[in-house]
Amino acid sequence: MIRTAYKSGITRASLSKRYLGNVSKLYYPEEVTGPVLVSENVPGPKTIELNKKLGEHFDNRATYFVTDYKNSLGNYISDCDGNKLLDVYAQISSIALGYNNPALIKTAQSEDMVNALVNRPALACFPSKEYGQILEEGILAAAPPGMTKVWTALSGSCANETAYKAALMYQASIKRGDNDFTAEELSSVMDNALPGTSDMVIMSFDKGFHGRLFGSLSTTRSKAIHKLDIPAFDWPKAPFPELKYPLSEFEAENRKEEERCLAEFERIIDQWPTQIAAFIVEPVQSEGGDNHASAFFFKGLREISKAKGVLMIVDEVQTGVGASGKFWAHEHWNLPTPPDMVTFSKKFQAAGFYFANPDLQPKQPFRQFNTWCGDPSKALLAKTIYQEVTHYGLVGRTAEIGDYVYGNLQSIFTKFPTQVKNLRGEKFGTFIAFEFNTANERNAFLVAARNKGLNIGGCGDQSVRMRPTLVFEREHADVFLQIVEDTLKQLYP
Amino acid sequence: MIRTAYKSGITRASLSKRYLGNVSKLYYPEEVTGPVLVSENVPGPKTIELNKKLGEHFDNRATYFVTDYKNSLGNYISDCDGNKLLDVYAQISSIALGYNNPALIKTAQSEDMVNALVNRPALACFPSKEYGQILEEGILAAAPPGMTKVWTALSGSCANETAYKAALMYQASIKRGDNDFTAEELSSVMDNALPGTSDMVIMSFDKGFHGRLFGSLSTTRSKAIHKLDIPAFDWPKAPFPELKYPLSEFEAENRKEEERCLAEFERIIDQWPTQIAAFIVEPVQSEGGDNHASAFFFKGLREISKAKGVLMIVDEVQTGVGASGKFWAHEHWNLPTPPDMVTFSKKFQAAGFYFANPDLQPKQPFRQFNTWCGDPSKALLAKTIYQEVTHYGLVGRTAEIGDYVYGNLQSIFTKFPTQVKNLRGEKFGTFIAFEFNTANERNAFLVAARNKGLNIGGCGDQSVRMRPTLVFEREHADVFLQIVEDTLKQLYP
Repeated sequence: MIRTAYKSGITRASLSKRYLGNVSKLYYPEEVTGPVLVSENVPGPKTIELNKKLGEHFDNRATYFVTDYKNSLGNYISDCDGNKLLDVYAQISSIALGYNNPALIKTAQSEDMVNALVNRPALACFPSKEYGQILEEGILAAAPPGMTKVWTALSGSCANETAYKAALMYQASIKRGDNDFTAEELSSVMDNALPGTSDMVIMSFDKGFHGRLFGSLSTTRSKAIHKLDIPAFDWPKAPFPELKYPLSEFEAENRKEEERCLAEFERIIDQWPTQIAAFIVEPVQSEGGDNHASAFFFKGLREISKAKGVLMIVDEVQTGVGASGKFWAHEHWNLPTPPDMVTFSKKFQAAGFYFANPDLQPKQPFRQFNTWCGDPSKALLAKTIYQEVTHYGLVGRTAEIGDYVYGNLQSIFTKFPTQVKNLRGEKFGTFIAFEFNTANERNAFLVAARNKGLNIGGCGDQSVRMRPTLVFEREHADVFLQIVEDTLKQLYP
Repeated sequence: MIRTAYKSGITRASLSKRYLGNVSKLYYPEEVTGPVLVSENVPGPKTIELNKKLGEHFDNRATYFVTDYKNSLGNYISDCDGNKLLDVYAQISSIALGYNNPALIKTAQSEDMVNALVNRPALACFPSKEYGQILEEGILAAAPPGMTKVWTALSGSCANETAYKAALMYQASIKRGDNDFTAEELSSVMDNALPGTSDMVIMSFDKGFHGRLFGSLSTTRSKAIHKLDIPAFDWPKAPFPELKYPLSEFEAENRKEEERCLAEFERIIDQWPTQIAAFIVEPVQSEGGDNHASAFFFKGLREISKAKGVLMIVDEVQTGVGASGKFWAHEHWNLPTPPDMVTFSKKFQAAGFYFANPDLQPKQPFRQFNTWCGDPSKALLAKTIYQEVTHYGLVGRTAEIGDYVYGNLQSIFTKFPTQVKNLRGEKFGTFIAFEFNTANERNAFLVAARNKGLNIGGCGDQSVRMRPTLVFEREHADVFLQIVEDTLKQLYP
């Protein structure tokens, strides 16, 4: 099935087809079959030595281990001591196809890539003659249903901030109509003052994470340490449902909580003293603790915002590109009308936002503008990632593997009923998380798992999140499940 | 001469040595010797066709021409119609060594580059074992005198915003001393409210440009169109000297103007109702119109800010990496003590900020943090650029060529005394600009020059800026001067 998404003739390949063999074995015949542990602990002595040296010039205090990427392959990451760990964190959810993927290597060695790297264009002034086609065959072919345009950027933070700018300019232009900027607007804006500067706001959700630059950080509400001491705009925060897991067991209670949050969302729009230009929401609040909500909730957000003229921005920086078992996680919701914008980064390497409404391009050029406006070298990687994902049906595959992992974790956790709780991610691909009672217990789990050869990350206050590649196969799942169980047995004998 | 800049043993190569041959001919034996014009006008019909197609999906309204980068070489950029233009705009000041530079191609084809592209790391958690060395041999070897550390980012905007964050966290930690965050700070910050959110500010200058994300845009004061309809922080703006050119002719008047601005700068620090954490300044206000100030002014800023405990951030995004005739333009000033931070991007491909004070790294990890924290593929390009620049002495070379161009422009403009004015950039490398009486006249010059085979950009309201590569040789200068003169003769017969 080829789904025609655009008048222009761009077609989105079927996401349901499925390569029947083992894609990981095909890519990585020499991938190890389990963790290889060389040093007594991870991090080992060479990490400690190299990290100390790095710290002379670069902030090294968040280092898990110094990595030997050339020696990493597929789902296994190698540290510089020679330990090879099964990696289900994947550069904070950013490695789509595994380490040293042969298709990406081919792209990286291509003439197009060399050209993109050594002649990096200012894309909005001097677009390369290839850029349109690179977008059409990659980033745009992957566009969510109903979205036909893209603005490219360099990171998740600037993807979100440029989307906010698009929303703010759009709402201002609706108010302004055919009138030109006033003399007062033109002069006041140079003093960061009204009316040229806007008092419109961007709404986000409690525990949401949307980046760490000044505008994105004003919408980020994940953890105090992300925000302390940084000026922020006085923008509204809506409550995000605090659901009970598993979702299927608590439908009635959860529905009530979601209705409460929807009512509050609507009340804020009605009562906020200035206009709300847009709101932004993650399909799953990832950094904030892997908090889910149901399709009912997101449909409600879409309906209310549509009725009130507030734009809907879906932040798919972490959830996008297949991990949820859909190419874009918001496809789980079957929204009545598409979001106004969808932002992406991480697994796609390229960053930016999709949209359909041409009026989200400001009437005047040079308003949504900067020197680079994206990076063709990253767009080339995104194109290959999209083509490999669709060629091998990696989204459907991830959905299946996710179900397998979820079911098995469920049965493992029955043995640790007081220690591990709130397994999340049912029918949501490998986008799976679970929770401990305290941050200390969670951190002890992360360290113990790493010493058994599993690299996995935390999120929220006391959660563990699984963010593997899209070529995480049954045999990797089995290694993963074994280490999780062994680690829990060691911690809670 | 090898100048030892760091305890760690990093040395900065001499910037005064000078390859005696023609570097451009060495790199580009097949570079054309003058513009090649194929279509009747630039942009030609193929640009118009391809740009229309691009516009179906991507904002194309700022396009000068659709570019054939594979067919561009050295100082000549080719459009998709086959026109070859002498490029003295260089992707808005971002191409250091010319198009399709063989040294950069070698780096782009290297195993290290392929590795960096296909295994893009979350650098602050999983730094590659090569990253420390790539920094030491490239970005850090190029560090301005007195700077020993770097934080890497992805664009000029995020380089500046992460520098602001460093300044704000630093000032807050001085106030906080050994005390931990208070409960009130930890809770209020989640509502974007004081005291957890800061009311400290970043000061910038009238007509300054520092980027277009929300924090950087709040410090940008170049043009209304950059800022309209976007919320901004109520941060202070200091006056930037409005000098008379040539600077050497108006020393006494200019000194008075600079003294006035310094007094106002000091008054704002004293009287602003909240603490000013830092100020940011460009060595030459580029986007805002190529406005210069003297070493006297910048020394004054350093002295006043040092005395008042306000951090000094020098934005070298456009001025950095050789164009001014020094590697960093602020080296022209001989400051009594170095700036606190220096930001970079553009010609270095990699972005970020330098600093020396280790306390500009917040006490806690994960505060200055994001997924990528830079990009090793760009750091590899920066390393090659630095090594080529120092190997061939391109900085000293650019200083000489700049003097040649400046002197010749001066004599050309004597023929157009009422039409062209305010030639800027004496003894400042090829960082040269001049001005027309109106925006329309300036724009007519840009279009006419382009149709004669010269690609050059505007800045400010009615200025033209020259931003060539660092391999812009005497023969390119002669072609440039001829086209400038011919264009003026055509416009003002």
